[in-house]
Amino acid sequence: MNSVSLVGFLDQLVRDLTPRLERAVEEPSHRYTPELREALRYTLLAGGKRIRPAVIELWAGDDADRESVADAQVAVELIHTASLILDDLPSMDDAHLRRGRPACHRVFGVDTAILAATALLARGFEYLGGIDARRPEVQATVMFAHAVGLEGMIGGQHVDLRLEAERRDFDSLEYIHRHKTGALFEACGRLGCRLSRAPSQTVSAREEVARVYSRNLGLAFQIKDDLLDATGHADEMGKDARQDRGKPTFVSVLGQKASVEIMERLLATARESLHHADRADPLLGELCDYVMARTK
Amino acid sequence: MNSVSLVGFLDQLVRDLTPRLERAVEEPSHRYTPELREALRYTLLAGGKRIRPAVIELWAGDDADRESVADAQVAVELIHTASLILDDLPSMDDAHLRRGRPACHRVFGVDTAILAATALLARGFEYLGGIDARRPEVQATVMFAHAVGLEGMIGGQHVDLRLEAERRDFDSLEYIHRHKTGALFEACGRLGCRLSRAPSQTVSAREEVARVYSRNLGLAFQIKDDLLDATGHADEMGKDARQDRGKPTFVSVLGQKASVEIMERLLATARESLHHADRADPLLGELCDYVMARTK
Repeated sequence: MNSVSLVGFLDQLVRDLTPRLERAVEEPSHRYTPELREALRYTLLAGGKRIRPAVIELWAGDDADRESVADAQVAVELIHTASLILDDLPSMDDAHLRRGRPACHRVFGVDTAILAATALLARGFEYLGGIDARRPEVQATVMFAHAVGLEGMIGGQHVDLRLEAERRDFDSLEYIHRHKTGALFEACGRLGCRLSRAPSQTVSAREEVARVYSRNLGLAFQIKDDLLDATGHADEMGKDARQDRGKPTFVSVLGQKASVEIMERLLATARESLHHADRADPLLGELCDYVMARTK
Repeated sequence: MNSVSLVGFLDQLVRDLTPRLERAVEEPSHRYTPELREALRYTLLAGGKRIRPAVIELWAGDDADRESVADAQVAVELIHTASLILDDLPSMDDAHLRRGRPACHRVFGVDTAILAATALLARGFEYLGGIDARRPEVQATVMFAHAVGLEGMIGGQHVDLRLEAERRDFDSLEYIHRHKTGALFEACGRLGCRLSRAPSQTVSAREEVARVYSRNLGLAFQIKDDLLDATGHADEMGKDARQDRGKPTFVSVLGQKASVEIMERLLATARESLHHADRADPLLGELCDYVMARTK
């Protein structure tokens, strides 16, 4: 793995993962429900950077149990895609576009979109449960369920929806994104460590590093999203367009310059953390550069 | 367990389960999100017949691992409650009342209701994952995730939403409810068997019986719901009220008399199945009578 570039690694990952994602939403019997299956496929297979599966694989390492790594990668993309469908709903962000296409609910209706998200989430847990059945010590289900729920992704999304603009400051934005985005990233890094075949003490020590790395990478990733959104909108339709839709971001609250500085500091912390691991794939460091440099 | 009446058993079950459900939605840190937690509590703790937890416990038997039975009961109520919140949404059934109180989204808003349902689902899987971590052979997560998803509860709900009135006949209504309601009931019966401490061959044989019993009980339960709804509306506001809201039911498609006959046949099948088990709690038979006789 160390001999390839990050871009090569990510390309290969997408090539390997795509057919597995397709299989994950195949349904043997759909006598009355082809449309629901189509809605699942529509958002899941529309592309995506697959950064979370990369984090799992890079922390798992070459000696990991390949089947469980593959299942974990499918699971996190199913869960992440479910969260995108929910975020885009009219009662949430009311987004029109996702991954360059009309959002799921704009094509299939709000009711189907909600059910599609729920079915993706359930299928994600089915994969995690499969890992636990083979390797109960991993506890993949418990870790991800916690990262998704009230004290994770969903909790963060709720604060993001409901916190008044005037209460948005660095602390509250950090709280939102550490939950909304960071929790799932963190679970990916930790799960990767647990899937390696190292002794449990080594795994625990590595997991602590992966936690620091992943949560900082995740938060930086989110700030980069905000920066790209701000720039994108500035180019295309004037800077106010997005902010008028309601939710203040790192960029709108702290300004572009401060947001870039915070992102760089988070990525430096993530990179620095890698020195404390008994082993860390060099591509994990490159992933930090990739997040900073990405243009979409 | 055999010495108490079904009513006594159900009363005790509710008394035991309620504090566990409360603990399941406690959240140590909710710096910005007390409202989301309130929304979870609101629907989860509004009462409910707790029939699904009863099915788990009666199939598990007295010699089962109590901690896992308790966790499974909490999990299924979390998941079932999530499905009620989703069903009631404006884009689904647009229900105003649930368990005698305004539906979750009418109190907390559609966005919070969707997030509350997702958080309940995630917490449910967290409990199931806990069972798998202790007893990996049970595979609780995989079984329930399948029962919830595309080929289970969510798949059934989608057909229920989208199937045109003119295509509603016995077969399609049966399909809908075997998925929407039956799949989770079936998972409860099967999980109960797996939680007993019997040898695996005994468990497998019992599970087959529990499957037949639970799916027929679940479908009968749903038809009884339809019958109660039809009668309830007839008394309170005229019979057309509910049917005008759109979705044809067993009662509206097949008539009241035929629906009662079908329900009785299903319950007879459930009762009959019990003779094929190496052991079956007599309360399982009484549960069939209870479903038929219930008035709410």
